[in-house]
Amino acid sequence: MKKQKRIREYGIHIGEMTVGPKNSITDVDGVTVGQVTLSNQDTQTGVTAVLPHQGNIFQEKVLASTHVINGFGKTTGSIQVTELGTIETPIILTNTLSVGLAADALIDYMLEQNPKIGQTTGTVNPVVGECNDMFLNSIRAKKIKKDHIFQAIHTASSTVEEGTVGAGTGMLCYSLKGGVGTSSRIMELDHGTYTLGVLVVTNFGILHDLTIQGNQIGKALKEKILPSWEEKDKGSIMMVVATDLPVSERQLNRILKRTSTGLARTGSIITNGSGEIAIGFTTANKVSHQKTGKISSLQTIHEEEIDEAFRAVGEATEEAVINSLITATAVTGRDGNKRPALKDLLKSFQIPL
Amino acid sequence: MKKQKRIREYGIHIGEMTVGPKNSITDVDGVTVGQVTLSNQDTQTGVTAVLPHQGNIFQEKVLASTHVINGFGKTTGSIQVTELGTIETPIILTNTLSVGLAADALIDYMLEQNPKIGQTTGTVNPVVGECNDMFLNSIRAKKIKKDHIFQAIHTASSTVEEGTVGAGTGMLCYSLKGGVGTSSRIMELDHGTYTLGVLVVTNFGILHDLTIQGNQIGKALKEKILPSWEEKDKGSIMMVVATDLPVSERQLNRILKRTSTGLARTGSIITNGSGEIAIGFTTANKVSHQKTGKISSLQTIHEEEIDEAFRAVGEATEEAVINSLITATAVTGRDGNKRPALKDLLKSFQIPL
Amino acid sequence: MKKQKRIREYGIHIGEMTVGPKNSITDVDGVTVGQVTLSNQDTQTGVTAVLPHQGNIFQEKVLASTHVINGFGKTTGSIQVTELGTIETPIILTNTLSVGLAADALIDYMLEQNPKIGQTTGTVNPVVGECNDMFLNSIRAKKIKKDHIFQAIHTASSTVEEGTVGAGTGMLCYSLKGGVGTSSRIMELDHGTYTLGVLVVTNFGILHDLTIQGNQIGKALKEKILPSWEEKDKGSIMMVVATDLPVSERQLNRILKRTSTGLARTGSIITNGSGEIAIGFTTANKVSHQKTGKISSLQTIHEEEIDEAFRAVGEATEEAVINSLITATAVTGRDGNKRPALKDLLKSFQIPL
Amino acid sequence: MKKQKRIREYGIHIGEMTVGPKNSITDVDGVTVGQVTLSNQDTQTGVTAVLPHQGNIFQEKVLASTHVINGFGKTTGSIQVTELGTIETPIILTNTLSVGLAADALIDYMLEQNPKIGQTTGTVNPVVGECNDMFLNSIRAKKIKKDHIFQAIHTASSTVEEGTVGAGTGMLCYSLKGGVGTSSRIMELDHGTYTLGVLVVTNFGILHDLTIQGNQIGKALKEKILPSWEEKDKGSIMMVVATDLPVSERQLNRILKRTSTGLARTGSIITNGSGEIAIGFTTANKVSHQKTGKISSLQTIHEEEIDEAFRAVGEATEEAVINSLITATAVTGRDGNKRPALKDLLKSFQIPL
Repeated sequence: MKKQKRIREYGIHIGEMTVGPKNSITDVDGVTVGQVTLSNQDTQTGVTAVLPHQGNIFQEKVLASTHVINGFGKTTGSIQVTELGTIETPIILTNTLSVGLAADALIDYMLEQNPKIGQTTGTVNPVVGECNDMFLNSIRAKKIKKDHIFQAIHTASSTVEEGTVGAGTGMLCYSLKGGVGTSSRIMELDHGTYTLGVLVVTNFGILHDLTIQGNQIGKALKEKILPSWEEKDKGSIMMVVATDLPVSERQLNRILKRTSTGLARTGSIITNGSGEIAIGFTTANKVSHQKTGKISSLQTIHEEEIDEAFRAVGEATEEAVINSLITATAVTGRDGNKRPALKDLLKSFQIPL
Repeated sequence: MKKQKRIREYGIHIGEMTVGPKNSITDVDGVTVGQVTLSNQDTQTGVTAVLPHQGNIFQEKVLASTHVINGFGKTTGSIQVTELGTIETPIILTNTLSVGLAADALIDYMLEQNPKIGQTTGTVNPVVGECNDMFLNSIRAKKIKKDHIFQAIHTASSTVEEGTVGAGTGMLCYSLKGGVGTSSRIMELDHGTYTLGVLVVTNFGILHDLTIQGNQIGKALKEKILPSWEEKDKGSIMMVVATDLPVSERQLNRILKRTSTGLARTGSIITNGSGEIAIGFTTANKVSHQKTGKISSLQTIHEEEIDEAFRAVGEATEEAVINSLITATAVTGRDGNKRPALKDLLKSFQIPL
Repeated sequence: MKKQKRIREYGIHIGEMTVGPKNSITDVDGVTVGQVTLSNQDTQTGVTAVLPHQGNIFQEKVLASTHVINGFGKTTGSIQVTELGTIETPIILTNTLSVGLAADALIDYMLEQNPKIGQTTGTVNPVVGECNDMFLNSIRAKKIKKDHIFQAIHTASSTVEEGTVGAGTGMLCYSLKGGVGTSSRIMELDHGTYTLGVLVVTNFGILHDLTIQGNQIGKALKEKILPSWEEKDKGSIMMVVATDLPVSERQLNRILKRTSTGLARTGSIITNGSGEIAIGFTTANKVSHQKTGKISSLQTIHEEEIDEAFRAVGEATEEAVINSLITATAVTGRDGNKRPALKDLLKSFQIPL
Repeated sequence: MKKQKRIREYGIHIGEMTVGPKNSITDVDGVTVGQVTLSNQDTQTGVTAVLPHQGNIFQEKVLASTHVINGFGKTTGSIQVTELGTIETPIILTNTLSVGLAADALIDYMLEQNPKIGQTTGTVNPVVGECNDMFLNSIRAKKIKKDHIFQAIHTASSTVEEGTVGAGTGMLCYSLKGGVGTSSRIMELDHGTYTLGVLVVTNFGILHDLTIQGNQIGKALKEKILPSWEEKDKGSIMMVVATDLPVSERQLNRILKRTSTGLARTGSIITNGSGEIAIGFTTANKVSHQKTGKISSLQTIHEEEIDEAFRAVGEATEEAVINSLITATAVTGRDGNKRPALKDLLKSFQIPL
């Protein structure tokens, strides 16, 4: 796929903090992303996998949290993440009706990696998020198969494609083509320099609410295009937040809650339909599956330092959402349903960003 | 399967309230239960399905809630139940590593029942709970298939088998053979007579904590049998609560929280491992999938009447747990692992209840 | 006090929905607001009281909910509001160190109104929120007395003063003078026309984040004024949401969560310090203190209608925040600490809104 | 006050774990308790203060959590404890209508101890819990004054009186005289020996539910005494849990949730009225008020070790409740209302424990 221009390449600099080298969730050391795209007529769907680190995640869990902004969604795994404060599998994102299959495949993958699971050491908690891509994708056909999940995991790398790709293939955002987006921020604290990255799959919003850095671009576009393009908002977004900041699960949860600030600045009113869920982890605190017999030390920042992370996650979420929109390419899918790309519309109507 | 004697048939009357005609979750009008049992050497597992009513559950949802006592579990569907206060599918219980498959099968079932899902009307939220039966069952082999899920749903009736059956086939409870149990209570209020029923799949506890109506039967048994029978507690129980009491989702949630009283009276200390989760619904308040354009009336009791339900759910949970134990039959499963039945031990050692 | 120009009078129309006749929380029928202002040198503080209706609130409670955006705050009463879904007292807002006194006074007030409390009918749950006005107010001096609380309640009317008044007297917002603001929206549904109003006490944000309808006015101002004016953000805001929309406490809670969208659009990143808390009620569902012996009917909208309320609460919160800023007047308080008024700065530097 | 016999002195050993030297919350090093009792005809109330350590609690906060079993209560301070995971004041327990006054007094105390609060360093979060003693105490008279709060704090020591004392002076438990009780347990882990203590103020339950170590003593008593002694249950209990176990706030919260097991074993069904709330802290993790500029290390146990604490908190809660009952002395209070002491009834009717 041809690399698409990201929002910074249009001269739009969201927020004030420094971005990471790749401006991507993979700026957090060890984090990789793999994607599988199924795009063929009525089938417009896919899988995005985020791997928190490159070792055995079950044996060396990452400290984690989830935050539900809107719970009209089918994300699985969150109960245990909340109770134990850890994630022990790759995080899989896909379409809503493939969550069960994806969880099942993720279990298979984990069993294969860990022969002791279910034999001598308990079970495993698959983490799978979703958005509903039924407008462009024949979601009832359930075209995602286990091999797609495995492939997304196995091909994960530090390069993240954005737009009409992976779990974002069939998604809509602000009534336009949405998809996958990512961004990152660098945090400077007294005791070190840290990175926070966000990856989103966007599937929410109505056109006239779309705002880019305060510019109500959605209203401008709506005057130009047929109102019939607008669908009822179904409000769904998955946000994966990665950081190497030393935080407790409580602190991480506070950070996840601030994804909503970035989201709102793009125009979201968090509508009723579907789920808006943030899943986050820090690679700075790993938790051994095996009991060690010793006291563990959890590394944490002082609460007064956390505003840096609050600003970072808001900015990175906002930019990731806009990146998902601006990199998306137009799709014609199920029953001839179509969604245009933001960049094409801006060009057609000569609307400046 | 031969009908097993329940705890009341031993002369043990738990609590003080009147029980329903069947002393079963199916005393709540419209509720049915279907079970599939896989019991063959290393395979000791199964499926239990609870249907909230006999109509189209997606079109006519039941008002619902969930409560997590201990979240070391993989139950799926709870995020949306919490957000929207409804359940729109049968509730499936099975083993931990089959949750993904069960959710996938439940999606298939719902798609088949509802041609508009994913076509014109959004998606569906499968509710699946689990316990880990790996001690007796070769859980890694993942012997549960989609047909088992369908069969459990299709064979649901108002008769509930207990003990070593369905999702309870391979479960342990207080280091003995656990399984499926059920019980119900009748609530008399000024404005009517109502029923509350509980169905449990028990998989928690260590022998010496087992208490039946204040009698520390576990301690007595432990002196008689090899301590090597005792496993580290993995603490898991699934509790499905059904009622026809007119309550809001907030009130229902308060009722679900009181399952813990019955649980504790059997000796549980709610250990770290696995999940203890209550899923509940009331058939008194149904929620139409389709917007009606009118204001809806949610029927609720006055808060001062709720103690009757609090007592009912505690008693029914306690009795359901004890029923699961006393009806269970001994199993030899994976790698020759064995669990005795409580009734056999009581008989062997001539210990009175 | 001279009436201050509100943001609409500057030609800024936030959002797209129709505002109520007074563009105030008191557009919700029956809701009144009373305020007491203490402004004298080192004393810059006060009280704001919101009365949900004009009857006996203890006897006829309003269905209610609270939502904590950031819990670094001392609001009292929320535990019971969450458990029972009702508010049974006026809502008092004041400074942080006066929360105990205010709760105590509110108890006195309720005892006087209700001779049976603590005699034959249980106790009462005072609801008190706060922000920290220590920069301008000698908060340690604790100048708020019980009579101020009583006075705020007794003088409540449908006219709401904004800006440097009541609980907002000593508050800061975006490093400028903050205070009290209000706004409302009209919601048109198939079954009727409803109103939602928000009243805020603003005490959060750093200047350079301030955004008015997408216009980064804070950055423009910051270039003009001394950076030394900027304080570390302490991030506090109290939001009271009133509506006559027929909703359940669960639905109301979902609405309260969307206050964050309006907040974020003004530039908030929800910093660590102090509390950001929404307290809401609907006058459409009243709950009798006395048991009636009958089933109650809770009036609710269909979930698909709720987006109208989500948009309303976001818009009204955004406008209430901006109203609190634009109506505020400059204050010199404790130890000569000063905060300028937004309107004065805009005029001085000839910056257009 | 004459020292009352505790339940162990009757030969009843609740649970199986070793108790601490004083079998008291003050077995946790540094923890002290102070109490003020007002007992004179219609006035039957008081104050109990728990100090987490003997240093400046505001400057050196203890890691903390709260858990609401039933939220029909007026405890204040929990929002911030949940958000920040720390307690920064003594914990005050008193009667329901004195919560505001107690919070106000606690603020005064903290201001006096910490001249910088509200001057240069933000405010303080008072933690106050309550039960409703209106049956025996003329609660409307509000006889608790600020000096009682100060006195409870200033007289705190490692000796804890139980029964009809402090905040427990006017409380009822299982329709008998309740009050203050405490107990502790020793936990042996690979890396050290730790202590967990619980202090309760009991004010819940109906006589016929009372169970002592499986013995349904309440039923036996009820047959002997006038049924008119029984009141409608108002279900309130405050539980303060202290430990020196190195746990995170998440782990501590899990421990607090298990107080319910001990509670239920005494017969509680957790009725609707009043609040059942656990407040806990660990002295093993202190959090500096001042930012240090360095990464902090939070000491935590491995999750697999936590069952020891789960068992400890259940046993200590159960024993503390029973201690509160067995040490209580009969009271005649408001309007001649009376409650007998359990020990007196057992003696009168020659019922063995």
